[in-house]
Amino acid sequence: MLGMFKSKVSLLAAAAILVLPAASVFGADSGAPDSQVGVDTLWVTIAAMLVFFMQAGFGMVEAGFIRAKNSSNILMKNFIDYCTAIVMFFLVGYAIMFGTGNSFLGWSGFGLSGVADIIPNTHVQKYAFWFFQAAFCGAAASIVAGGMAERMKFAAYIIYTVAISAVVYPIVGHWVWNEGGWLAQMGFKDFAGSTVVHITGGWAAFIGTIILGPRIGKYKNGGLPKAIAGHNIPIACLGVFILWFGWFGFNPGSTVAVGDGSAFSRVAMNTNLAAAVGALAAMAVVWIFFGKPDLSMTMNGALAGLVAVTGPCAYIEPWAAIAIGAVAGVLVVIGVSLLDRLHVDDPVGAVAVHGFNGIWGTLAIGVFGQKALGVPLDGLVYGGGWSQLGVQALGMLTVAAFSIVCMGAVFLAIKHTMGLRVSRAEEFRGLDIGQHGMESYAGFQIFANE
Amino acid sequence: MLGMFKSKVSLLAAAAILVLPAASVFGADSGAPDSQVGVDTLWVTIAAMLVFFMQAGFGMVEAGFIRAKNSSNILMKNFIDYCTAIVMFFLVGYAIMFGTGNSFLGWSGFGLSGVADIIPNTHVQKYAFWFFQAAFCGAAASIVAGGMAERMKFAAYIIYTVAISAVVYPIVGHWVWNEGGWLAQMGFKDFAGSTVVHITGGWAAFIGTIILGPRIGKYKNGGLPKAIAGHNIPIACLGVFILWFGWFGFNPGSTVAVGDGSAFSRVAMNTNLAAAVGALAAMAVVWIFFGKPDLSMTMNGALAGLVAVTGPCAYIEPWAAIAIGAVAGVLVVIGVSLLDRLHVDDPVGAVAVHGFNGIWGTLAIGVFGQKALGVPLDGLVYGGGWSQLGVQALGMLTVAAFSIVCMGAVFLAIKHTMGLRVSRAEEFRGLDIGQHGMESYAGFQIFANE
Amino acid sequence: MLGMFKSKVSLLAAAAILVLPAASVFGADSGAPDSQVGVDTLWVTIAAMLVFFMQAGFGMVEAGFIRAKNSSNILMKNFIDYCTAIVMFFLVGYAIMFGTGNSFLGWSGFGLSGVADIIPNTHVQKYAFWFFQAAFCGAAASIVAGGMAERMKFAAYIIYTVAISAVVYPIVGHWVWNEGGWLAQMGFKDFAGSTVVHITGGWAAFIGTIILGPRIGKYKNGGLPKAIAGHNIPIACLGVFILWFGWFGFNPGSTVAVGDGSAFSRVAMNTNLAAAVGALAAMAVVWIFFGKPDLSMTMNGALAGLVAVTGPCAYIEPWAAIAIGAVAGVLVVIGVSLLDRLHVDDPVGAVAVHGFNGIWGTLAIGVFGQKALGVPLDGLVYGGGWSQLGVQALGMLTVAAFSIVCMGAVFLAIKHTMGLRVSRAEEFRGLDIGQHGMESYAGFQIFANE
Repeated sequence: MLGMFKSKVSLLAAAAILVLPAASVFGADSGAPDSQVGVDTLWVTIAAMLVFFMQAGFGMVEAGFIRAKNSSNILMKNFIDYCTAIVMFFLVGYAIMFGTGNSFLGWSGFGLSGVADIIPNTHVQKYAFWFFQAAFCGAAASIVAGGMAERMKFAAYIIYTVAISAVVYPIVGHWVWNEGGWLAQMGFKDFAGSTVVHITGGWAAFIGTIILGPRIGKYKNGGLPKAIAGHNIPIACLGVFILWFGWFGFNPGSTVAVGDGSAFSRVAMNTNLAAAVGALAAMAVVWIFFGKPDLSMTMNGALAGLVAVTGPCAYIEPWAAIAIGAVAGVLVVIGVSLLDRLHVDDPVGAVAVHGFNGIWGTLAIGVFGQKALGVPLDGLVYGGGWSQLGVQALGMLTVAAFSIVCMGAVFLAIKHTMGLRVSRAEEFRGLDIGQHGMESYAGFQIFANE
Repeated sequence: MLGMFKSKVSLLAAAAILVLPAASVFGADSGAPDSQVGVDTLWVTIAAMLVFFMQAGFGMVEAGFIRAKNSSNILMKNFIDYCTAIVMFFLVGYAIMFGTGNSFLGWSGFGLSGVADIIPNTHVQKYAFWFFQAAFCGAAASIVAGGMAERMKFAAYIIYTVAISAVVYPIVGHWVWNEGGWLAQMGFKDFAGSTVVHITGGWAAFIGTIILGPRIGKYKNGGLPKAIAGHNIPIACLGVFILWFGWFGFNPGSTVAVGDGSAFSRVAMNTNLAAAVGALAAMAVVWIFFGKPDLSMTMNGALAGLVAVTGPCAYIEPWAAIAIGAVAGVLVVIGVSLLDRLHVDDPVGAVAVHGFNGIWGTLAIGVFGQKALGVPLDGLVYGGGWSQLGVQALGMLTVAAFSIVCMGAVFLAIKHTMGLRVSRAEEFRGLDIGQHGMESYAGFQIFANE
Repeated sequence: MLGMFKSKVSLLAAAAILVLPAASVFGADSGAPDSQVGVDTLWVTIAAMLVFFMQAGFGMVEAGFIRAKNSSNILMKNFIDYCTAIVMFFLVGYAIMFGTGNSFLGWSGFGLSGVADIIPNTHVQKYAFWFFQAAFCGAAASIVAGGMAERMKFAAYIIYTVAISAVVYPIVGHWVWNEGGWLAQMGFKDFAGSTVVHITGGWAAFIGTIILGPRIGKYKNGGLPKAIAGHNIPIACLGVFILWFGWFGFNPGSTVAVGDGSAFSRVAMNTNLAAAVGALAAMAVVWIFFGKPDLSMTMNGALAGLVAVTGPCAYIEPWAAIAIGAVAGVLVVIGVSLLDRLHVDDPVGAVAVHGFNGIWGTLAIGVFGQKALGVPLDGLVYGGGWSQLGVQALGMLTVAAFSIVCMGAVFLAIKHTMGLRVSRAEEFRGLDIGQHGMESYAGFQIFANE
């Protein structure tokens, strides 16, 4: 192909572009060529599609890891939290997150009104940017469904979803991803959302499952946890693959630019490595300490690696992604065991995956992050000292506390008004029948299990 | 590092750029730069992949919503209708749809012979354009499988598929999407196929299910419909997510251009909003009128929103997508109830989703469409009067009638020759065994249900 | 290492474009414009995501085609072989495959150290190229899981995975896809991996299943094979759709360039046609010879078409893709029957799909390949004579023999040390319980079947 440009013509061609700024080549809004806006917008739109598709992944993982009698209920929660989040983020959330306002929240752009066609500091059309961010908001909302599975009322879940997608998540997002946010101004970093998405969602799930209490029968004999097996491991496994696939939109897409390709492709590679190593590490730990390599925990190891690398993915080298994934895989096993010992009944491991590893990912930026890759200060291992790590710790603690306090208040308010939990009889019978009047597997003979 | 690039080529390229820009930078076929053709072709190819993937979505939705004993049969139908449509569209369909001919049908480009490398009025390679359009043709064919599920012979289904993919769908497509088509010339608009794909497929399903008759036992006690529950709601839910995901190829990809990104990204946003609101609206209606929020109907609400926004998606603002989705979500519940009352036994709701909402989407262009966004006349709400709506109504009626008449003739012809329906004994036993000699879930204990 | 990162965040890139267009638009590394590198890298990255997603497809196909009691085991194998392959390919495999060395193997670039930012002869960032190639390596590893399903120890499978992904696959890849490889230098062609991926994986599965021996009860009554039905055909069908979808990254992505779009879009079209025709051909053969159109064999027909077209996809016209797919669909049915007669117990048909059709695809380049499309000599049907076919046959035989010998040695070594096969009791009870201490479908009533 003669279309291949060569170094010797670079300057000439550059000059030609400079002296030919035709109206059709350069857009009015951004000063960038239309083709650059087109390509960057295309990338962000495709990435948004992939993030949307993660919703299917969350649904399948959560459904597969719980009992058959509650699986339509959790799918309905996943389905409706995305739909609700989309509408809420359009009407309210986007304005709070990305609008101009103060360092705590934004207050402009409700229903996208008045938002510039091309998002400032990018070459991305507002529609694509909104779609991408809205899909993120849906993901944050979905995390909670798993932790509170098998006993929470559907109507209560809708109220929760409105609160997190319209208010809580956008406020956290404003702090970190709006250049006017107070954490952003302090130099806090979170590339694709270990903090914004996973700490917010994971610790909301933590407080939610505590307020809700454990499932009937989970801790009955002297408090020893009873394993309640998932009903469909193949669809759970498919869900993990879909999440991993969608994460390639989540992390690499957060570059919101194509540029010369080096940023998003490194992010993709790091994402892939951290997930793979997370799975291997979790498998090894479970194999060593529990005797057999368990698929469920191995899959959670991959998700843990993905969550942990989400924050640092653009600021690190591949070797650091391996290190981050390895720690994440160990951490998720510890987290699941610890929560079980504390009688925090999280049926799918959402807190250990998203909450614990959201923290690890946020801190890892202060350990492995590089100034040359966009962090204000080099991380610990590069001799940059403790400053960046300190800022990361501050942001992590504030966001976790904010999520726990806000969502705790919402869950308590629901508990004391409409009620948070289904009746004992309904919990036995299953939420599919109780909440939705339907069965998930009509015709199949299924054992009644508590 | 620079040594890897051949200096001879550099000089040639330099000369070409400086002296003969038209020969090197601009392609011979389209007058557009190669890079623009490359990027537009990439976008259309990726969109085509997504439309292809909808086939998996159709398969999972249709299989999940019917009984276990017929699920391999419907998957086989989905699988083979795509394969057949691909071959037919290559040999015949493309020529009828996009070939030059008269205002009723085209007659050139059989097997793509003689088709220009770059499709006229685009910057897209013919291979990509064909792939995208062929995947659409497969989608249109698949709609019918659901409506005629659980009782139609497999061989009959193949005959049907040949008819719709080689002749009926391409003729409708010619009317609307070939600039020589009579509806196109009247100013009829259908951006991504509410009419071409969904009315054609949905009303073919309508006449097919009437000619086929209801499933045994569906209306037995004084004609009251008996609910026949789907056997695997989780895979049906996954199917809906896959369809929604694939729709981001279907609608945004129909721009067949990247441009400055504003068109396809707005289409993506509109598509997402309409689906979300469709689901919420259907859930609300079912909850209010039937007492509980049913997942199946909620999922059909999302699909209804997607079908309805398919036609207008590029011609409207986001707020209109919300309005269109809301109506679609209500309409699908009414449609399902109405058809059940009329004893039209459509096991998966294909007619209500595709047929009814194809009509609504087509008309919505005359209500919410904007001249500034590509419709000949502003819609009703913009004070453009009734003209565009009239053209839309005419096109909608003609296409629905054409599909009903043509496919009705095909189904009747099959019925009176090879037979359309399996035997009563086979229907009881299940089509998986009867038609394909296999079981879908070997080893699982499944209740015999009528 | 720090010098290789040019682009940081979009913010800085935006500033750079406004202030220094010449510096930011044209890259220093390759002589190609940054935008071309960006777009080509984007395409390869998206293609890599799709190839990754094939892993989910393999998992679902293999799990669905075997018995419920072994499905978590095979999913674990699929999950962990990808994770292992990713780590091994990063540490070792890439260096052997793409490093400089001799014509047998490469020996530079371990852990990507010293690899040029932009891969020579492409405009693709090394991260994207690695990600794409690593996903290929994972696919090659996964093929074997199906052939050795339902009786192989999990720990043994990990050893196998290390061997194939770190050594055997990379060596074959070096021969064919490294310009220094001996087959590459002879003019042997394999565009996307009929040889490199499918012959290597398929014939490793062949020797593995022979060394392992058939499942208990497979050939008991006078040696007549007993059909052992798959437990979940719907997820197997979903898996085939996912594989087909992912193949649009595998084949078209192997262009590793966008260019003017003609190459990857033709590859996409050819891929789609071969798969569709493969399915139709397999269905027809089964219908005629066995009386009913079987879905499992039809799906394997599509996969056979995909495998066969993988090698020639870029070198042929669409009509040749149809011919290749037709032969593949027939061949897979013959292959399955033949292997069954030889008492080679391949539960999912991996050898017939990948092994047999990898050979057919490799040879088809010598039959249908065109000099104008990149093969050194025209194929047989274009009057180019037998030379290219001879080179293809040589390469095919060498690679198949190499895979059989190397992997046979590995499997025998495992067999005589840690053991390759689970105990008879464990095989009866199922590998899910035996190897992983878990059930795939807790709560479902499942018949004990041998």
